Amino acid sequence: MNESGTDAAAEEASSAEQAAASAPAGLSRRGLLGLAIGGGVAGLAVGAGAGLAGGVALGRARAAADAQDPYAFFGDHQAGITTAVQDHLHFASFDMMPRTDRDDLISLLQDWSYAASRMTQGLEVSATGAVGGPAEQPPEDTGEALGLPAAGLTITFGFGPGLFENEDGDRYGIAALRPKGLERLPAFLGDDLDPQGSHGDLCIQACADDPQVAVHAIRNLSRLAFGRARLRWSQLGFGKTSRTTATAATPRNLFGFKDGTANILADDQKALDAHVWVADEDEPSWLAGGSYLVARKIAMLIETWDRVRLAEQDTIVGRDKGEGAPLSGGDEFTAPNFSGTSIDANSHVRLAHPEQNDGIRILRRGYNYVDGNNDLGRLDAGLFFLSYQRDPAHFITLQRRLSTDLMNEYIRHVGSGIWAIPRGARPGSYVGAELFA
Amino acid sequence: MNESGTDAAAEEASSAEQAAASAPAGLSRRGLLGLAIGGGVAGLAVGAGAGLAGGVALGRARAAADAQDPYAFFGDHQAGITTAVQDHLHFASFDMMPRTDRDDLISLLQDWSYAASRMTQGLEVSATGAVGGPAEQPPEDTGEALGLPAAGLTITFGFGPGLFENEDGDRYGIAALRPKGLERLPAFLGDDLDPQGSHGDLCIQACADDPQVAVHAIRNLSRLAFGRARLRWSQLGFGKTSRTTATAATPRNLFGFKDGTANILADDQKALDAHVWVADEDEPSWLAGGSYLVARKIAMLIETWDRVRLAEQDTIVGRDKGEGAPLSGGDEFTAPNFSGTSIDANSHVRLAHPEQNDGIRILRRGYNYVDGNNDLGRLDAGLFFLSYQRDPAHFITLQRRLSTDLMNEYIRHVGSGIWAIPRGARPGSYVGAELFA
Ligand code: HEM
Ligand code: HEM
Repeated sequence: MNESGTDAAAEEASSAEQAAASAPAGLSRRGLLGLAIGGGVAGLAVGAGAGLAGGVALGRARAAADAQDPYAFFGDHQAGITTAVQDHLHFASFDMMPRTDRDDLISLLQDWSYAASRMTQGLEVSATGAVGGPAEQPPEDTGEALGLPAAGLTITFGFGPGLFENEDGDRYGIAALRPKGLERLPAFLGDDLDPQGSHGDLCIQACADDPQVAVHAIRNLSRLAFGRARLRWSQLGFGKTSRTTATAATPRNLFGFKDGTANILADDQKALDAHVWVADEDEPSWLAGGSYLVARKIAMLIETWDRVRLAEQDTIVGRDKGEGAPLSGGDEFTAPNFSGTSIDANSHVRLAHPEQNDGIRILRRGYNYVDGNNDLGRLDAGLFFLSYQRDPAHFITLQRRLSTDLMNEYIRHVGSGIWAIPRGARPGSYVGAELFA
Repeated sequence: MNESGTDAAAEEASSAEQAAASAPAGLSRRGLLGLAIGGGVAGLAVGAGAGLAGGVALGRARAAADAQDPYAFFGDHQAGITTAVQDHLHFASFDMMPRTDRDDLISLLQDWSYAASRMTQGLEVSATGAVGGPAEQPPEDTGEALGLPAAGLTITFGFGPGLFENEDGDRYGIAALRPKGLERLPAFLGDDLDPQGSHGDLCIQACADDPQVAVHAIRNLSRLAFGRARLRWSQLGFGKTSRTTATAATPRNLFGFKDGTANILADDQKALDAHVWVADEDEPSWLAGGSYLVARKIAMLIETWDRVRLAEQDTIVGRDKGEGAPLSGGDEFTAPNFSGTSIDANSHVRLAHPEQNDGIRILRRGYNYVDGNNDLGRLDAGLFFLSYQRDPAHFITLQRRLSTDLMNEYIRHVGSGIWAIPRGARPGSYVGAELFA
């Protein structure tokens, strides 16, 4: 299940690329400053002088035993896309700080990669960690994951449209490399977006089977971003609403329906190549092996939904609530038959199905969320929808098709974001190095 | 570990009490109305006509296999107090609706008990559940926990001061039964409470090892409360910051410190009797076997904390960050020695220690929380502190003692609540029946 292991392809990376990658020896001075601010940095230990790849093997493991092997950070593709969906999500969107330059961005990506390569292996954020440094300095790791295993942690980085160019122009010298399709999503019917909870120059998706491990990752990566990028918005999620492996039982969303039945699975290489990974022949070439991530925070009007009779709920989805079987018959994994009248023309499943959309498929990886409740005593809950696709146009086509979805009466899109997801970092290099080659 | 099993004491309950308990045959008409609103209630199936105790055994299990036995709902004490702390929390506070009367309150407590007795066993909220009812009715269960085991779910109910008497007077005829100490907590130094996220006539603490199971419980109980009580505020928590069993490794809070080291453990019957359970000789007698729950939402200024040098963090807590050992020496479980100068006089541990507080101890059961972030890009995170104690005065003494706590610079109390926690429901009866005997 570990799609991002060190493999031959990565090792074949040309020496030119290797040179460009300039693997940092632990954290940058800027990153260390973020950790130490208020404490003075003079005597701060810089990891063990190890490069990125070496960093992984050094330093104290947070804990000895884990139920499963950690997922590799380096590899052809970033982990966290086809990886068997973990139980918990902490998603964070960042904006670059004003007056930052190309070197700031590069050092940030290097620090993030270094830290992610460690934390995904169950190590602390740096070799010195929470309690291994000088007592007269603030700890380099915040410590709440001490004693916890890697817990299947994956950390996936993305680049938003604003990173390539914004009102301030081409700050990082990468405007010419912006993928054409990487722009803020168009307005969709019924959108009710909170700009403060949308968009962002950079994103980090942290998924783990323990929420404390996912939260620890985002917290320490935000801290490392000091002076370079600032948290714009963040979202916790639980109870994965999708699946990428055939063995896992299909989880349920907060409408009570199985979600992920017709998803693209991790072992379906053909579908992944056709629908998820940007191909060598696609533009721009630096993004080959990467993908595009769309996030949509979709509030569910659950009290209203809960008053809908069962038959109508089934009609809206196009599948039955108990088993998740298409209303045209069979079991959960029977292909729906849209030729009769059993599946409503405006049911969610029919509108979203490849048959109605020129064969388009996406890889869904969403989570349920509950953000407390509103003043009327209603739970503020819904689906934090995440999808990976080869081309942003695929999501746009689907979302437009859903404009007549019967489900729309019960949902509101309140947040939105899109990011280009670079290929996985090569051992000794960092995520996004291709952009600066 | 299951402290609330059907036991001899419960079976000895006098027949007078049994009669007063008036076990409902499934859900009340009012509760069913809540489920069916918008769908008409005429033909709605009422469970299987089973009483509370019977209800547990009937109906479809949500799923066959669980890693552990479910916790019993009925028993001397409510489950969820000494129960080995589960990984996730959904806590909810409710207010009674205007113009409700004694019968409304009784039927609500009966419906909640019936539903809780089922859900804690991994069953749906009623025998008909999410998909077993007529297709022309809204489902009785919201369905998102279908296929999930009980996941260690406990549901613990509490009664706030306002339930006994408020501006509208003695609505439920129980004002004379209000425990003297059950009143809103006094203002403490540095309090910055949000009234919308504080207090409440009723509370429900749902703890489970799967957040989807805890959320499902609170959602379905709020739905059942229709017309009688309304959700006032709610809080999700994760990564328990305490422990009630000696075998569990001590978890860490978001300051990165072990939390729960000196807690009262489930097998320490003497300490439970002395410090947690209301005794037969305490007033009021209806609360014997119960406890008092204090909730404090405590925001942590984590960015500020993260800039404090390690030695100073240790000083503030009075223990070392790595092992959790008292600064006077030894290991995590060595008793602290306050006679020397190694533990600061205003350290958290010294101020909170029984030695400084006439021997007072409390049972802590808090959780970490992260509610997204604020406009400055700081995580909105902290500790949702929960403690159970025999007398509210015990918490007040401790919290006042903490007024000089060095830790105060890094925390803000933003929410508060207090509830009387009745004894466990007797089989065939409901939580709080003693109040209406
Ligand atoms: C709260 C919002 C949503 C809910 C509750 C929801 C729920 C569901 C459910 C229950 C299914 C059927 C089971 C399955 O195959 O997974 C499904 C399928 C699907 N949904 Fe959604 N969905 C939501 C939003 C979206 C959005 C925004 C998109 C994309 C724009 C989308 C795209 C799809 C696709 C492509 C399928 C598979 C269709 C097929 O091939 O049969 N969904 N969804
Ligand atoms: C964010 C706020 C708080 C944090 C981070 C915190 C943290 C800690 C830590 C790290 C310990 C030492 C380990 C242990 O025995 O568990 C501790 C102990 C303790 N805390 Fe807190 N605490 C907080 C709030 C409170 C509050 C509000 C109270 C009660 C009013 C309290 C009462 C206690 C008690 C009674 C002990 C055990 C002392 C002993 O017997 O040694 N704490 N706390």
